[in-house]
Amino acid sequence: MKLKAMTTMEFSATAPAPSVVMLRPRSGAGQWIMEEKYELTPFTPATEYVDQFGNLCQRLTFPQGDFRISTTAVIETCDTMDIAPGLPPTPIENLPDDVLQFLLPSRFVESDVLLDLANEVTAGQIPGYNQAEAIRHWIHTTFKYEYGTTDGTTSARQMVQQKIGVCKDFAHTGMALCRALRIPARQVVGYLYKLDPMDQHAWFEAYVGGRWYTFDATQQGPRGGRIAIAYGRDAADVALVSEFGPLETKSIHVSVEQV
Amino acid sequence: MKLKAMTTMEFSATAPAPSVVMLRPRSGAGQWIMEEKYELTPFTPATEYVDQFGNLCQRLTFPQGDFRISTTAVIETCDTMDIAPGLPPTPIENLPDDVLQFLLPSRFVESDVLLDLANEVTAGQIPGYNQAEAIRHWIHTTFKYEYGTTDGTTSARQMVQQKIGVCKDFAHTGMALCRALRIPARQVVGYLYKLDPMDQHAWFEAYVGGRWYTFDATQQGPRGGRIAIAYGRDAADVALVSEFGPLETKSIHVSVEQV
Amino acid sequence: MKLKAMTTMEFSATAPAPSVVMLRPRSGAGQWIMEEKYELTPFTPATEYVDQFGNLCQRLTFPQGDFRISTTAVIETCDTMDIAPGLPPTPIENLPDDVLQFLLPSRFVESDVLLDLANEVTAGQIPGYNQAEAIRHWIHTTFKYEYGTTDGTTSARQMVQQKIGVCKDFAHTGMALCRALRIPARQVVGYLYKLDPMDQHAWFEAYVGGRWYTFDATQQGPRGGRIAIAYGRDAADVALVSEFGPLETKSIHVSVEQV
Amino acid sequence: MKLKAMTTMEFSATAPAPSVVMLRPRSGAGQWIMEEKYELTPFTPATEYVDQFGNLCQRLTFPQGDFRISTTAVIETCDTMDIAPGLPPTPIENLPDDVLQFLLPSRFVESDVLLDLANEVTAGQIPGYNQAEAIRHWIHTTFKYEYGTTDGTTSARQMVQQKIGVCKDFAHTGMALCRALRIPARQVVGYLYKLDPMDQHAWFEAYVGGRWYTFDATQQGPRGGRIAIAYGRDAADVALVSEFGPLETKSIHVSVEQV
Repeated sequence: MKLKAMTTMEFSATAPAPSVVMLRPRSGAGQWIMEEKYELTPFTPATEYVDQFGNLCQRLTFPQGDFRISTTAVIETCDTMDIAPGLPPTPIENLPDDVLQFLLPSRFVESDVLLDLANEVTAGQIPGYNQAEAIRHWIHTTFKYEYGTTDGTTSARQMVQQKIGVCKDFAHTGMALCRALRIPARQVVGYLYKLDPMDQHAWFEAYVGGRWYTFDATQQGPRGGRIAIAYGRDAADVALVSEFGPLETKSIHVSVEQV
Repeated sequence: MKLKAMTTMEFSATAPAPSVVMLRPRSGAGQWIMEEKYELTPFTPATEYVDQFGNLCQRLTFPQGDFRISTTAVIETCDTMDIAPGLPPTPIENLPDDVLQFLLPSRFVESDVLLDLANEVTAGQIPGYNQAEAIRHWIHTTFKYEYGTTDGTTSARQMVQQKIGVCKDFAHTGMALCRALRIPARQVVGYLYKLDPMDQHAWFEAYVGGRWYTFDATQQGPRGGRIAIAYGRDAADVALVSEFGPLETKSIHVSVEQV
Repeated sequence: MKLKAMTTMEFSATAPAPSVVMLRPRSGAGQWIMEEKYELTPFTPATEYVDQFGNLCQRLTFPQGDFRISTTAVIETCDTMDIAPGLPPTPIENLPDDVLQFLLPSRFVESDVLLDLANEVTAGQIPGYNQAEAIRHWIHTTFKYEYGTTDGTTSARQMVQQKIGVCKDFAHTGMALCRALRIPARQVVGYLYKLDPMDQHAWFEAYVGGRWYTFDATQQGPRGGRIAIAYGRDAADVALVSEFGPLETKSIHVSVEQV
Repeated sequence: MKLKAMTTMEFSATAPAPSVVMLRPRSGAGQWIMEEKYELTPFTPATEYVDQFGNLCQRLTFPQGDFRISTTAVIETCDTMDIAPGLPPTPIENLPDDVLQFLLPSRFVESDVLLDLANEVTAGQIPGYNQAEAIRHWIHTTFKYEYGTTDGTTSARQMVQQKIGVCKDFAHTGMALCRALRIPARQVVGYLYKLDPMDQHAWFEAYVGGRWYTFDATQQGPRGGRIAIAYGRDAADVALVSEFGPLETKSIHVSVEQV
């Protein structure tokens, strides 16, 4: 499936605002960047580095006044999403070294205090893929999706109480319950074709049976047409924009279409 | 100053327990490993990798039954601790790429919700080193040090309420307030000569004026004689032992002497 | 300066040929990728990784038969090339850890046997930038540029004898003489605006006074309008295509224009 | 098998000599560091970093005058050396990303000009392990081991002519022929129990069937009791001492005993 994904973000800064932006997807095992645009208006010097998760990160200082970032990517991606019912967990001792960090709790994923709930939600499940899927399904059927009910400080621990939030909150909760069961889990931000309403999206991946599998608690069933922009332990690692100055995001417009 | 640091940990496992251990310090800018021992009793196959922070991590599966890890390190380290009153912050845009991650909130360091307190504690301070020192001093004079008052889930947000805890809680709080002010901060675990009572120790470093400086809120004033074992975003990254199985720590004995 | 660089390569494989391709430039300190296309015809699954030098590397298996790779990049780059006459060398003990490898000899850069020549060529020069420039100037005025006079096995040691070759041979020689003098040097492959005849290009950078500077022995004087695609120790590290199967390159077409 | 390996090196510098030293082995899949000493006499400040191959590298400036480095390591290592006759090569497309670099030619391993010889030496062999073993055996039976017949500039291409050299030359030749056949090969420096005469040693590893296997062309048959100190593309990457100043090595003494 060939998708064209576009993001336009408009900002206003009352003073120069140094920032880190993550809006350039990388080609990887499941996606190939065929075409890409990244416009800074007005043009501003920027640099780029690869972070500890392999993400491309753009560093720039937003100039005082109005500013626009506009990106386009045409990407060959998978039509369908791999699923693997019954797949056993990867024994901890066989996990690749760089997967181990995704077992640890993180800012919005307090897996260290959610073991009881994880056990409850996955009671009777075969260990491994089915546990992660049971967690995903529980969130999907128990949580309500509604904009404006959470903010940038809402964590999984709060979510299991309030049960209402947006995609990144669903992902945080899924990861917290997986990690509590010693299943490595990481957050993905990116695009999903035909997401309704269209927006930047977040979901999670769980590592079972020797590889990462996709889980999206906001969706009823498995769906392909995904583009990953960045991976991390939680939303803190993969913010589209981390600003360290007086920067206001005025608008964000996202579109994904098949080409 | 030449120090000999020893740790002996005794464990009991009711079943094989895969784990990651961090007990091997590395030579770095401020310390030189002259001599080192690392004994596993009974001997058990183990591997070692370097994590994303540069720490040496030992992977092993604790066998069922009793197990002992005994380490000794003789290390040339600094007699005194560098201080730098008046040093300005490093502008965000000049921070090295790999320091940026230490601006983000993490599991036990909720810097995203502690800006007001950080501003209050540092009111009137020159930005940079003096802010970090004011934070350290505030914790030192406001918090009480007492074993058993916190556990492995206690975070900075809780600490600013309860104001009682141990070294890692003091460090978490210091980092949370620094990061809230956009000063990168990282946790160090290691040894401190003449710490009373002697134990594994934790403190934090803040990045100002182009390098890392040591801050220890458990101590009245600057003290040298430090040995770093591992660095990370908070206690989750630098646990001496992260066990993923039924492992009980029966005892831990630490000693540090001058040689 | 905003440049549009295009490369089209046509291949023929008598059997599937696993390969590593380097044709995707990265944004960095001196260049910003505004727009990019990367077409594989027929479309073939490919993955991408970041190598030890920070280059984006595309892995794919060329299918049997004809195949085409076509890339376009629109890049904001520097109009001029920084020069720094008189700049002293960076003392070895102050070199960043990851620059040290560029002091070592490599396949096509036998710096270990060219010290006498390096001393001769730089006799009377102030150490540092001026040595690297004297080396560049010596190559430029002594060597003849001619296609077909060298091949993929020609090294700097041969070049100082035969004194005829192409851009990568000029770069190899420059690096060999710099490294012999303990000046770190690395190879760059990329595009140069108004290169005549237009082609993929190679030059070298030398690390003096705390940063990398560009040196291009094929050109009479300093010229901006450069786009870097990849960095490495020599041509072995930065081949546009490293094929591990029966792959023939049928044609390569390169264009660079200002937009 | 528990081995105690000691190296004492004595140096003399007519002026301060910045250097990189590799004398600290790391625990890895096949060896565990139980005890270690690293003495600098007179004591000199040193730092340590991990290079792109994962080696621990010590940076220090040898002071003017006499200097001694004395290291001891007690290491649990394998009694025997794994062999795997008949094991097929790993298809290029399945090689881990970080193994690909060991297919490329390097300073002392001109695999790009030795394909004919590699084919000749391995004629009739099953691809994979058996090719590497045939190469090893050919070197062992064709080359003569003699100190003083080669120097730090001798490469595999020269070795296949002169057929006389020392362990690193044997390893370079083995790697050159393996890489020519598209079998990844890397150099190891370290210790070998009961090596006669005792000295620092070098051998190579070839990547077949999904992992690295040991090949030592200086030995008649497979032998365990090995301790790896460093890995690299060839001797340039893994020199015990890379000096960038007027440093003379006065003596080197090595011992390895079972404990």
